[in-house]
Amino acid sequence: MNKILFMHGGGPTAVINASLYGAIKQAKESNYFDEILAAKCGTGGLLKEDFINLTNIKEGKLELLPFTPGSAIGTGRDHLEEEDYRTMCSICVKHGITHVAMNGGNGTMEATYRFSQMGKKYGLKVCGIPKTMDNDLSSTDHSPGFGSAGRYLAGSVKEAAQDVLGLPIHVVVIEAFGRDAGWITASSVLAREKKGDAPHMILIPEVPFKEEDFLKRVKELYDEKGGVIVVASEGLRYEDGTPIVEPIFKVGRSVYFGDVSSHLAQLITKKLGIKARSEKPGILGRASIKWVSKTDRAEAIECGKKTVEALIEGQTGLMSQITRLSSVPYKVEIGLVEITASVIKAKGMDKSFYTDNYDITQEFIDYASPLIGEDLGSYTTFMEK
Amino acid sequence: MNKILFMHGGGPTAVINASLYGAIKQAKESNYFDEILAAKCGTGGLLKEDFINLTNIKEGKLELLPFTPGSAIGTGRDHLEEEDYRTMCSICVKHGITHVAMNGGNGTMEATYRFSQMGKKYGLKVCGIPKTMDNDLSSTDHSPGFGSAGRYLAGSVKEAAQDVLGLPIHVVVIEAFGRDAGWITASSVLAREKKGDAPHMILIPEVPFKEEDFLKRVKELYDEKGGVIVVASEGLRYEDGTPIVEPIFKVGRSVYFGDVSSHLAQLITKKLGIKARSEKPGILGRASIKWVSKTDRAEAIECGKKTVEALIEGQTGLMSQITRLSSVPYKVEIGLVEITASVIKAKGMDKSFYTDNYDITQEFIDYASPLIGEDLGSYTTFMEK
Repeated sequence: MNKILFMHGGGPTAVINASLYGAIKQAKESNYFDEILAAKCGTGGLLKEDFINLTNIKEGKLELLPFTPGSAIGTGRDHLEEEDYRTMCSICVKHGITHVAMNGGNGTMEATYRFSQMGKKYGLKVCGIPKTMDNDLSSTDHSPGFGSAGRYLAGSVKEAAQDVLGLPIHVVVIEAFGRDAGWITASSVLAREKKGDAPHMILIPEVPFKEEDFLKRVKELYDEKGGVIVVASEGLRYEDGTPIVEPIFKVGRSVYFGDVSSHLAQLITKKLGIKARSEKPGILGRASIKWVSKTDRAEAIECGKKTVEALIEGQTGLMSQITRLSSVPYKVEIGLVEITASVIKAKGMDKSFYTDNYDITQEFIDYASPLIGEDLGSYTTFMEK
Repeated sequence: MNKILFMHGGGPTAVINASLYGAIKQAKESNYFDEILAAKCGTGGLLKEDFINLTNIKEGKLELLPFTPGSAIGTGRDHLEEEDYRTMCSICVKHGITHVAMNGGNGTMEATYRFSQMGKKYGLKVCGIPKTMDNDLSSTDHSPGFGSAGRYLAGSVKEAAQDVLGLPIHVVVIEAFGRDAGWITASSVLAREKKGDAPHMILIPEVPFKEEDFLKRVKELYDEKGGVIVVASEGLRYEDGTPIVEPIFKVGRSVYFGDVSSHLAQLITKKLGIKARSEKPGILGRASIKWVSKTDRAEAIECGKKTVEALIEGQTGLMSQITRLSSVPYKVEIGLVEITASVIKAKGMDKSFYTDNYDITQEFIDYASPLIGEDLGSYTTFMEK
């Protein structure tokens, strides 16, 4: 009797369900498993023995999965103690679960590693499927979820840029996900077709925020263009590491910060007397199926499949990952890597991708372009000289 | 010699360019005009004699217009004095302009009326094309721009709802456009397929905000669901009419308010100890071509055409408008109306569309459904009992 269990950890992405789809398909087609289960809302569900049986899931429901945002089996942010891993193993044994695939980012991959280690004593195989729109998993060239988050931001900035071009009366600050890593924020550069196009300033969390310099540049751009688009990471910090917005509230381990975009817009309005407004699409940007990158979706499906394949082969403690073979034409290989400390380590954006002038290098564009999928298309304007 | 001039006023919508497209097409096809001009960024451009010549615009550029957000000829928010209308007339005469089509909302239609009155002494014909995503123009069944703004919000809420369903750990407050009218905010109800689906609470500006009652309902819903979606208008006010967020700053005639969504999320976190976050897509919601309602776009084009037709027939002081013939099947007639005080008067959402329990009636759903265009589609979940 083989039983496979799927679990999701951390925030959803636009393609976490696509990976689940790939994993379920692979599990079904292999005919290796007698039952296919999911733990509702991640490890918390497993600890409560709250399972969803996916063995006879209807084809129609399954086929909607890659086009459904959020996590269809739920996900969670539960913190696990050593004891919990033992309990999870016992529960798996009790329910006859022999294989586990965990989908998530750095935290979840650490849990996958620890679960796989503990699982060895119980004959349990545990492997991981990478997922983080923040793109901060090391080892893999990029993570499923990032391409779609990048596409959402670049596409939305490109649309908003037309609004500002036609009504050039203000500075618009758009807040991007990625509190510790600038990957998503930087992707906004892909909105640009030619020099001078929005985004006009890009602020990543890896580079300390310098208020005076920031305001000086905003003023220059406003004087030149009248309409300016600034894209800023939610996690901007000063040189000394303190966030530019105060923590508003703490609940358990979570700290609630104010909005960086609103803070910057107020700064511009108050200090420069220039009209400014802020936009913060927030979770709309990780839940957008409209803006899914088809490349991202296809890779997410493949990662899901690869991990199940590895489990069937008897592997444990591995994560599927994406290795880039070439950028032009874009070619990748979906492989496997042993989960070690260096895989789990958060990968901030390389500062060499960033220029002094609030901009992003061509090198980054070459890296990220293929990930956000098909061309964003072009708009028209009759206002150019 | 006949020369037609196009002008846009106020904030762009996702389909203001579609109306411009219809207007240009009609002007070209009629062969009535020797020249087709636009005033750059609205009346301000006209007063500066800053024109764009569209007479020989390339077909390729023109065909991109209905798929381009923002205003391709620019738009503005200039305040006009009586003297300005005289000046605008003189400038038109000087440049041989004989016909003017102005596209905008209540303010712009008032300007259209006044310009048309003044224009009579100069042999100038001036008509209007309705546009306001806020949907607060009277007389017309609805305004071009509203359907797309509604579709953006409903579609985005439906996507975000899947995120919250799979990670039910917080209250998510989504801020909607419409400082004085609840039409857009109310459209979020179209995200709902069945009872209990998000949005779970809808707050329109026409109904006074009662903090205690609001928090009570949030708590009930959170206790029941764990994940709650609240959609709130940017213009929420208390019973006495004061906005629930303080004006932060004034620049000229514009007042800058804080964010309602962030205010409500902080309220929930601080007073109830419940995790809450805020999302404010802002201008992304009026610039989204991805979420354009095809119905809205088609009607916007027709309104543009109709106004030019009226001008060719020698009419002045009229606005094209949409009359609904039936909702099922959806049928409208694009006609013309004389611009009078009652046409210009801002049309708040009828409170009878709103229920006591932060919800919207079926009557509103029947009204708004056809306007947001094709079905939003369905997602799947494996979490249901």
